[in-house]
Amino acid sequence: MSAQELAQLRGVLAQGGVDFTAEPTVERVNFDGLLASFPQDESLVTTRRSVGGVSGLWADGEGPGVLLYLHGGGYTLGSAGGYGQLAASLARAAGVALFSADYRLAPEHPHPAALEDALAAYRGVLDSGVRASDVVVAGDSAGGGLTIALLVAIRDAGLDAPAAAVVLSPWVDLSLSGPTVASKAAADPSLDEKGLSNAARHYLAGADPETPTASPLFADLTGLPPLLIEVGEAEILLSDATRLAAAAGEAGVDVRLHVWPGMVHDWAVFAFMLGEGRELIAEVGGFVRTRVSQEVQAR
Amino acid sequence: MSAQELAQLRGVLAQGGVDFTAEPTVERVNFDGLLASFPQDESLVTTRRSVGGVSGLWADGEGPGVLLYLHGGGYTLGSAGGYGQLAASLARAAGVALFSADYRLAPEHPHPAALEDALAAYRGVLDSGVRASDVVVAGDSAGGGLTIALLVAIRDAGLDAPAAAVVLSPWVDLSLSGPTVASKAAADPSLDEKGLSNAARHYLAGADPETPTASPLFADLTGLPPLLIEVGEAEILLSDATRLAAAAGEAGVDVRLHVWPGMVHDWAVFAFMLGEGRELIAEVGGFVRTRVSQEVQAR
Repeated sequence: MSAQELAQLRGVLAQGGVDFTAEPTVERVNFDGLLASFPQDESLVTTRRSVGGVSGLWADGEGPGVLLYLHGGGYTLGSAGGYGQLAASLARAAGVALFSADYRLAPEHPHPAALEDALAAYRGVLDSGVRASDVVVAGDSAGGGLTIALLVAIRDAGLDAPAAAVVLSPWVDLSLSGPTVASKAAADPSLDEKGLSNAARHYLAGADPETPTASPLFADLTGLPPLLIEVGEAEILLSDATRLAAAAGEAGVDVRLHVWPGMVHDWAVFAFMLGEGRELIAEVGGFVRTRVSQEVQAR
Repeated sequence: MSAQELAQLRGVLAQGGVDFTAEPTVERVNFDGLLASFPQDESLVTTRRSVGGVSGLWADGEGPGVLLYLHGGGYTLGSAGGYGQLAASLARAAGVALFSADYRLAPEHPHPAALEDALAAYRGVLDSGVRASDVVVAGDSAGGGLTIALLVAIRDAGLDAPAAAVVLSPWVDLSLSGPTVASKAAADPSLDEKGLSNAARHYLAGADPETPTASPLFADLTGLPPLLIEVGEAEILLSDATRLAAAAGEAGVDVRLHVWPGMVHDWAVFAFMLGEGRELIAEVGGFVRTRVSQEVQAR
């Protein structure tokens, strides 16, 4: 672990990260501004495109593979643009094209709007002629939970499953019942129970926090494609990741979990200043790369 | 998954695998005979050697790395010879030398005899001039639990930590409190609660089943080296592996967990008839290979 880089990152986060207790429509602008203030890799080029009726950012790939990306932000904040560097970095590391969806956000559009948009985007990718076996779905934080909910929805809709899925620091339990919500509270510089409760309240809009389509830890996970789960040790959501690994494994899913010592929530967002962020992107890229075709096939 | 190979393996196990309810001194002979009846890869050559006063099997490697291997068998059965093919396959896949220890078995030698021998073997490897950073400890089933207990003992003794550790289908909770002891009972063709209880009784010899040196799930896991945990879905010990991943991750260990759909306890033992066994050996080999030196250094 690069202790100096991590200490610097913790300093940045202590000065002000995302605030889930603020008014979402205001904080949304602040948060995108924060993400835009980070150094940008100009070689990561994306263009706006609509796929399946969902607007988002597109980047071309080397082969036929497509990464369908679902950004984080507690279902209330964040955007394809704000997480564009992360999503495009992952797609480039994997050698695949990217579609990062601007799914609708709460409180204006509560559950299941985000899931409906994610499913529409997946249908749109398939309708464009990409084989399901060349699609990998990925997301971070709330987008990681949305990724798992999408896999369940794809199965329940009778659609072909994607080749695999990757979730980074996933939030899969909006009831916040995991033991690390308390045990890692002091260690986590990014998230707290109050903020996540607030975000959950906006997204659920009165629904049971254990609703499987919002909290997919409580869904039947049978038949899901191979799953890579990445999580940091210094996260109140650590036990979301470990419980997801246990539940998916018990349901017969090919699951890989990697817990990174000392890492904070969504640390790949800080890849510009953190070696482990770059390592994570490379690891995910390698996982995705081996699961999609590397050559354009005749269709 | 190769469904046909797996069905054949389940047929073999249904005809009679290990019986932990039998008299250990008798079953020990039967079990080694069963393992010896499997097709042997004659290119895997081992020789008997004593390391740190502990007898075991040695195989030379390509570089300076050494795999210290601790075999399975519920602390009452099994031997370095019986698990020689598995251990030597793993070492060859990793390009390292092997020392597979014939630690003392219960009931003649209950806890902590096995751990004392494992620690003596580790000291012996270091005393032979191998750097701790070139040693990886690994084990399956009870040997996986013993591996974790050894890592804790190495830390507590103030010795340099090995580069990493690998546990296959580890048994880390002799109190059998994991939820899959019940939920996977019907799915598991290899182990049952009665047999494991019997083995635990022999090893514990009256000690509390939650004794951390016997059930390292309950140990303080802080400061342990990077850990790879491999487990099958069709195992009553699945939740030993998932709980170990969660506990080690929360303690700040770099942990990787891989849950393999449909796989039975210790499936790498059946690599001669199961593709996933060969895949597992290759995966573990790759993990170990990247963590030890690849060239002999001047000492």
